[in-house]
Amino acid sequence: MSSMLVVGSVATDTIHNHLGTHTRVLGGSATFASIAGSFYAPVKLVGVVGNDFPDAGVQVLRQRGVDLRGLEVADGPTFFWEGRYSPDLTSRESLKTELGVFASFHPKIPAEHRDTPYVMLGNIHPDLQVEVLDQVKKPKLVIADTMNFWITGAPNELARMLARIDLLVINEEEARQLAGVHNLMKAARALLAMGPSLVVIKRGEYGALLFEGGSVFSAPAYPCEDVQDPTGAGDTFAGGMLGFLAQQDRIDGATLRRAVIHGSVVASFCVEGLSVERLVRVQPAEVEARYAAFGRLAHFATAAELGSLA
Amino acid sequence: MSSMLVVGSVATDTIHNHLGTHTRVLGGSATFASIAGSFYAPVKLVGVVGNDFPDAGVQVLRQRGVDLRGLEVADGPTFFWEGRYSPDLTSRESLKTELGVFASFHPKIPAEHRDTPYVMLGNIHPDLQVEVLDQVKKPKLVIADTMNFWITGAPNELARMLARIDLLVINEEEARQLAGVHNLMKAARALLAMGPSLVVIKRGEYGALLFEGGSVFSAPAYPCEDVQDPTGAGDTFAGGMLGFLAQQDRIDGATLRRAVIHGSVVASFCVEGLSVERLVRVQPAEVEARYAAFGRLAHFATAAELGSLA
Repeated sequence: MSSMLVVGSVATDTIHNHLGTHTRVLGGSATFASIAGSFYAPVKLVGVVGNDFPDAGVQVLRQRGVDLRGLEVADGPTFFWEGRYSPDLTSRESLKTELGVFASFHPKIPAEHRDTPYVMLGNIHPDLQVEVLDQVKKPKLVIADTMNFWITGAPNELARMLARIDLLVINEEEARQLAGVHNLMKAARALLAMGPSLVVIKRGEYGALLFEGGSVFSAPAYPCEDVQDPTGAGDTFAGGMLGFLAQQDRIDGATLRRAVIHGSVVASFCVEGLSVERLVRVQPAEVEARYAAFGRLAHFATAAELGSLA
Repeated sequence: MSSMLVVGSVATDTIHNHLGTHTRVLGGSATFASIAGSFYAPVKLVGVVGNDFPDAGVQVLRQRGVDLRGLEVADGPTFFWEGRYSPDLTSRESLKTELGVFASFHPKIPAEHRDTPYVMLGNIHPDLQVEVLDQVKKPKLVIADTMNFWITGAPNELARMLARIDLLVINEEEARQLAGVHNLMKAARALLAMGPSLVVIKRGEYGALLFEGGSVFSAPAYPCEDVQDPTGAGDTFAGGMLGFLAQQDRIDGATLRRAVIHGSVVASFCVEGLSVERLVRVQPAEVEARYAAFGRLAHFATAAELGSLA
């Protein structure tokens, strides 16, 4: 069992969806990723909140055992995002983004966290992601997320970041945008040429693709019947994936595939509740049961299995 | 080894895509489905062409061993479709649809075909699909395709057809439209309540979902690097699936899952060439190799496998 470090945003979100308006609920990439990772391995969070951040938010993270020594409290308002989902939850519109204390944030990795072997760079400015890499000591695996905002707004900074990470986690459309090509096989190859040796393309309700050492793994998504709130699902996916790798403390192809499924498992719980409400209540037995459900969902008799039956 | 009957359109298509304009190439739902099925089991085709239908089209089907005793040649023009694909091939616009001799088509199942155990009703007017069912004798499995045109234009006829089939194959968006609900789990349940005991939802480049006896199977799509022409891929998928079931002559859950993968295998070849050009050149060893590739694409260590390793 190893441990993981998560650097990213800690926020409050106001969400308008099919169930109503939910005011200043817990949000942020580091929040979701830390809680997801905590089901598998010890998690250390680095981020910033304002002095208006609700104590309940801190308690939620603390109850999941997240090490908060790297969480600064600065004078000013916490990062705030407000958004409205379409009725079918497949798209959303940002209504308000107030950076607050995040505007002047520079991650400071506490000395005791600098040798954490598994590092997640949440979706923040690529220069800040690089600042983290300048502070940590030879991690075994660095995973980073990014988004269209940085692809168009900070392409050179993004390129410098990509050259220094191991695993890029990116949405399908953003993969196409960053690679400049529609076909995902070609897009993945272009992304791999930018630096990371591993790429995971997130496809939402269609699952995820892992590109690793010339092989492709297509992971299904869990067919949720009652999606409540997709906010944070991508961060939860990445955090769960990294947490599982930290738990196993190995990075071979078979373990990476299991990690993608575990990321999908925790993400499937995330969307079943508002904010982190469902995620924080997940029990270890539920994780195991859903991993088994993924096995049933994806299973068919392979050529090798059929050969061994003959 | 059993055999299959395919009823549907036989057409010529003019296709505008990223490679140029392709004039009056072979098309039609029954054409693609028959060729796909022919890799697995004997196929009998029932349809109609005009007296302008190119002899080369007949030869292509004959070379794949398709029984053409049910293919009428009527006085007039063959069904013609013209369409333009978007540059990324993810959408298309119909420019022209000329029914020709298909406008007055009523399927006549030759006496010697009426006891075929596996029957595919290609995407034609649901009344014509029902006319086929009125002529065949207790098939083991009837699979039908449909589309938005009939969902909105012939809902009562469609309902009567659905009540009499075993397996509905339908696109994701059309499944939602027909069921009247966005969530695919709920949509599938609604479709199952309309008659069929099996539903397959096609998701294009995202694969397919099989709903069977309370279980869900998520099949990946093959990540094609060089898609040439998606025309007919859905019909190829359904024809390959039914052909495999006819070959195995069994309809249990495990065989259905393998059938979905085989449908995906032949569909992946279909899109690699224009019209049926790549599909007709497929060799049995290529089918086996691609089935094996699907196994590698989807494989991860399941809970059961991990348990047996412990």
